[in-house]
Formats: sequence, C-alpha cells, structure tokens
Amino acid sequence: MSYKVGVIRGDGIGPEIVAEALKVLDKVAEKYNETFDYTDILLGGASIDATGKPLTEEALETAKSCDAVLMGSIGGNTTTSPWYKLPANLRPEAGLLAIRKGLGLFANMRPAYLYEELKDACPLREDIIGDGFDLVVMRELTGGLYFGERKTFEEDGVTKAVDTLTYSEEEIRRIAIRGFDIAMKRRKKVTSVDKANVLDSSRLWRKVVNEVAKDYPEVELEHMLVDNCAMQLVRDPKQFDVILTENMFGDILSDEASMVTGSIGMLSSASLKEGSFGLYEPSHGSAPDIAGQDIANPIATILSASMLLRYSFNMDEAADAVDNAVKQVLKDGYRTVDIMSEGMTKVGCKAMGTLIAERI
Amino acid sequence: MSYKVGVIRGDGIGPEIVAEALKVLDKVAEKYNETFDYTDILLGGASIDATGKPLTEEALETAKSCDAVLMGSIGGNTTTSPWYKLPANLRPEAGLLAIRKGLGLFANMRPAYLYEELKDACPLREDIIGDGFDLVVMRELTGGLYFGERKTFEEDGVTKAVDTLTYSEEEIRRIAIRGFDIAMKRRKKVTSVDKANVLDSSRLWRKVVNEVAKDYPEVELEHMLVDNCAMQLVRDPKQFDVILTENMFGDILSDEASMVTGSIGMLSSASLKEGSFGLYEPSHGSAPDIAGQDIANPIATILSASMLLRYSFNMDEAADAVDNAVKQVLKDGYRTVDIMSEGMTKVGCKAMGTLIAERI
Ligand SMILES: CC(C)[C@H](C(=O)O)[C@@H](O)C(=O)O
Ligand SMILES: CC(C)[C@H](C(=O)O)[C@@H](O)C(=O)O
Repeated sequence: MSYKVGVIRGDGIGPEIVAEALKVLDKVAEKYNETFDYTDILLGGASIDATGKPLTEEALETAKSCDAVLMGSIGGNTTTSPWYKLPANLRPEAGLLAIRKGLGLFANMRPAYLYEELKDACPLREDIIGDGFDLVVMRELTGGLYFGERKTFEEDGVTKAVDTLTYSEEEIRRIAIRGFDIAMKRRKKVTSVDKANVLDSSRLWRKVVNEVAKDYPEVELEHMLVDNCAMQLVRDPKQFDVILTENMFGDILSDEASMVTGSIGMLSSASLKEGSFGLYEPSHGSAPDIAGQDIANPIATILSASMLLRYSFNMDEAADAVDNAVKQVLKDGYRTVDIMSEGMTKVGCKAMGTLIAERI
Repeated sequence: MSYKVGVIRGDGIGPEIVAEALKVLDKVAEKYNETFDYTDILLGGASIDATGKPLTEEALETAKSCDAVLMGSIGGNTTTSPWYKLPANLRPEAGLLAIRKGLGLFANMRPAYLYEELKDACPLREDIIGDGFDLVVMRELTGGLYFGERKTFEEDGVTKAVDTLTYSEEEIRRIAIRGFDIAMKRRKKVTSVDKANVLDSSRLWRKVVNEVAKDYPEVELEHMLVDNCAMQLVRDPKQFDVILTENMFGDILSDEASMVTGSIGMLSSASLKEGSFGLYEPSHGSAPDIAGQDIANPIATILSASMLLRYSFNMDEAADAVDNAVKQVLKDGYRTVDIMSEGMTKVGCKAMGTLIAERI
C-alpha cells in the first residue's frame, strides 16, 4: 500500500532526529513492501522564518490531506531567539496549538516507561522502581485553559488578565472513551485526574468519566486529585496504568512522568482523533543548544514513527520490529550522550538511526 | 506579652496533632514567659457537623480577632464521608478556601527540605539528593482558577462547565514582593513559574515579577514553565531556592516538592498577608483512616507552630528552639510510624509531642 506521510522537521534538533526516523521508516517500507510518500509541512520557527506565520492555512491543508504526520520538536531558545520577540500569537508554540486544534487532535497519548537497560538513569531509588513501571498519560489536547478565551485589559488603571477553562460533556466523553479503550489493551486500570474539590469543569469531568466507565465494566476506575497525582508519580509510579486528564493537568503530569523515567530522550507521543489519522512527535523539546552537532538522541522520534505505524497504519508487526530494534540497540550497548553510561559505546544521532534501521 | 491564638482542630487526625502542637506552645510560653490565649474556631467537617456550614461568619470574625491561627488538617474521606454528599460549596474544602479569602491570606509559604536523619525516606537516588535540598514554594493563595467565577450550564442540550483564571497586577505584585523578601533571607534566588507561552495571566505574571525584581538587584531571577518545573523538581531539586507561582501551579508543585522529600509528615506551611497575621497548618492531609489511633505524626503541626512564633510573633529564638527540639528528637532516634526505619524507637503521636516539648 501507499501512504501519504506529512513531515514536520521542526526547529533546533528537529531536522536531525526526523531524518533518522525517516531512515527507519524507509527500512520498514522496504522490508514490508509499502510505500511512504513524504510531504514536508512547515510549522513553528521554520514556518515563521519562511512565511512570517507559525502555521499557514496551506500547511494546515497539506497536513489534513496526509494519512499521518511525523513531527520533530519545535520552538527555540525563549530568551535569545528572535521568534520570542513576536506577539504571542505569532510565536512557534502558537503554531503547535493551532495545528492540534485545526486537525482536531483531541487525544494526546504519552507513554512513560522504564527501559531495563536505562534503569540507572531513573532518578528514583531502586526499591521504588522495583521491576519498573509502564504508564500512559491520556491528555485532552484541544480544550480547557489552553484554548479558552483570554484577554488582558485595564480596569480603573489596573491591568488584569483572564484565561478561561471550558469543557463540554462531549469533549470529555470522547477523550474518556479513548482512555478506556487504551486501558482495555493494557492492564485495565484508569486513574482519572481532576481538581473536583474546587473546579466546576472538574466536577463535570468526573461525572462524564463515571458515565463512560459504565461501558467498561472490566476496567478499574479511580479518581485522583491533581495535587495528589503529582505526589504519587514520585512516590510510586508503578500504581498507574492509564492516567486520564484534561489539557493543562496532562501537560504538567506527562512531563513529570517523563522525567520520572529519567530518559526523556526515549519517549514518544501520539496526538489522535476519531479514525486513524494522527500526529506523532517526541516528548522532549527542540534543544536548540545542541542542534546541528549530531549528538541528539533520535530514539523518541523513531519510537514516534513506530506509534505512527501502529495507530495510523495498523502495521503492528512493523511497529513491533521498530520497538525491538530500539531495545536491541540498547542491549548491544549503543548510547547517545544523554543516556550514556560507563562501559557503553557512545554514538551520534546519525549513527544511532543507522544502527536501529539495520536491526529491523 | 499575651497573644490571642486561634485554634482550628480540624478533622481526621487534626485534633490529635493540634493537641501536641499546643503542648509545645505551652512549653514555649512557660520558658519565654509569654501568654498564649487559645480560642477554638470551627472549620471544615467539624463545622459542618456543628453548624451545617464549613465556615460560619462568626468563626471567620473570631479568626480575624486573633493574632495568629494554628490549624490541623481538615476534610474527610471523599468517597465514604457524608460531607461529600453535600453540594460543593458546603463541603469541608469550601470552608478552607473561604477562610483563606476571608482573612486575605494571599501568600502561602511551603518549605520542602530534607532532614539529614530522614534521607532514607527520600524517593530520589542518593547521587541526586547529594547534600540534600532546601526550597520554599511561595504560592499565591486567593486568586486564579480557585477563586474565579465558575458555572455549569446547558447549551443546545449539552452540559458545559467554565472556570476562570483571573489575576490583576496588584495581586501578582504583592505575592512577588513576599517571594523576593523571603529570597533575601535565604539563598537569594527566585524561580518564577508560569505558562507564559500559552496563558495571558502568565504573561502578566511574568511582566509584574520582572518589575518587582528590579527592586531586588541582589536576587537572581529565573522564569520557568510549569511543565518544566514539574520535571526539574524530580531531576534536581537542589537547583531551587524560592519557587514563586500562582495558586493552582503552586498547589501542584508544592505537593510534588513535599513528596520529593519523602517525609510529608514533617512539612509545615504558613499562609500570610501584609503585616504579622498568619494561618499555620501542616502540609499533609487529615488522614481519616488513621484518626484516633495515636499514631499520626504531629511534627508538621509542631513546625507550623514554630512558623507561627517566627512570622506572626517575631519570636525567632523560641522558633529556633522548637526547630532544634525536633531535630534533637530525630537524632535521639524517635520516630512515628510514617517515618520509622530500622534501629529507631517507634513512638505514638502523644509521646512524640511530649518528647519534643521536653527538649525545649
Ligand atoms: C509548547 C506548549 C504549548 C505545549 C503544551 O503545553 O501543550 C508543550 O508543552 C507540549 O506539552 O506539547
Ligand atoms: C483542599 C484544597 C482546596 C486545597 C487547595 O488546593 O488549595 C489543598 O489542596 C491545599 O493545597 O491546601
């Protein structure tokens, strides 16, 4: 079959890590006799430089015409890059928010787990880690505070700023369904996180999640307050299977969970909607300070390509092959500098991509 | 001198731990020849049971008439307690929010540090802990999402809920000033946390904090995004001195920071306004499951009493004496069950209070 893959190379280390993910996809295409037809899409800083806008209508339309989109990280150094002298709605991040909204990608799935080989990188004590942990944060991605109305205004000579957090039943229901569906394929536990002791939107969240849960009698559901969840991720990450939560809580908790693994350079993410379309990107940032030095870790992006194969193209076998190639490369002792440890062989970004592609 | 101290015994383990803190205050009164005149104030579940409301006007007026208030934790088991069958505005937590607002306590100060003796409880790896860490979260406490307008309504047959996040320059300025003032007495570093790449309120926050910073040329200021801060607290808590942030981010991050110490039973907090009045409470919850068994750890409440002496009564010497008594008791090997480890002597709540009072 032939698939149209949108490619957002992004900023900072983006282009380098995306190149390695494409190397891996090419190998998959060859081995499984498929055709991936790549189309470049501009987003973020690269788009600002070329067009003056972080996302053009045209780029959004191209993305919509693809079967799936693979993305590197976007954005630059917020203190030194000229992009951050622009008004907020013209900065790189505005493009990211706009493409999520424009494509209707309401479900962000971020796995956080510990590779046996990288246990030493985990900041937690060994007795807490135990046999490791394996959780997924399902974050609502197009609602809540990040997409609410906002304004800054003067009242009686005092400047005030307002952001609004809105959720409708439907927005909550569709992400909850995704969360429970994923839990059914995993260890069948959903932890829904909110601040229902304070927020109206959280009380509605809890109510709708309880309703959806009725359709999944096999799944164990628990509710947890966001402040408690921030604690539990440090105290005992093993307790979690699927963490289901709204946009901002998901932003904070998924980053915390990534760091609890200690190897954020390994973590991929998928942004999904109904149907098979998805946008796939590493969980880490664009690391402008190390861009262009061939030292970035491409694994998170390669694993994002694996998620793309699995969730958008239904190519489970190929996705497993990529995941296993990553594991094998770690077993074989190859490390980029961010995950380097004693006795291992240090390799650059390109070499890591090649080593993984060879193992497919 | 004679001081009027409001006492909120609270719910769950609240009454037990408050009793031990009063034992310690009595010892201080005796030793330093001061008079503490205690006045009980109802709040939370205890107030609901007695009056039907989580905070009465009368209780608020009494609190206002005090020089400072000492509080145990409030609230119950959210699944089993009848308090949580009540409408949201009549539940225990609503009383807590109302007393903060009613007393104008806009600055919540939550220290998180590692006791040398309790290093083993810290969930982080030893090489990350190093010589320990010592940070304070300064959380804005009466603005933002927790106090904004909220509503739940139907639109075209769909239920929607809205919460609003509002900050004015003045609200930001007064907490920023408190944050910088505290930093001047510590290691002179402020990390201001926001989500300025998305929220208008965060951009205003950053602007005002930058303005306030000009009056503190000795203090190093850095800005950090909330998702990054959630990561950095796990990766390297030593980098922080004062974390300055808005209400909800502060709620999440201060709990995360507490858990990173591993001994939340040791952590106190102060809620302050201009002037010397303050409300002091442990950082942990009301633990209804262990209430009445004389096994709760009273130390966080005792250290809250020490903060009360220091910040409301300007009794630094007495506060130091309490802090040192706590350290001494740990050195002497006494532990409540939550911080128990091999070779130590396990004691109950009352015994712990007595042991600390004896060392003053
Ligand atoms: C860049 C920013 C707007 C974005 C977000 O918070 O959604 C990022 O932090 C992420 O998590 O993808
Ligand atoms: C009970 C709740 C409203 C409260 C808050 O979030 O402010 C609590 O979590 C706290 O941190 O004191």
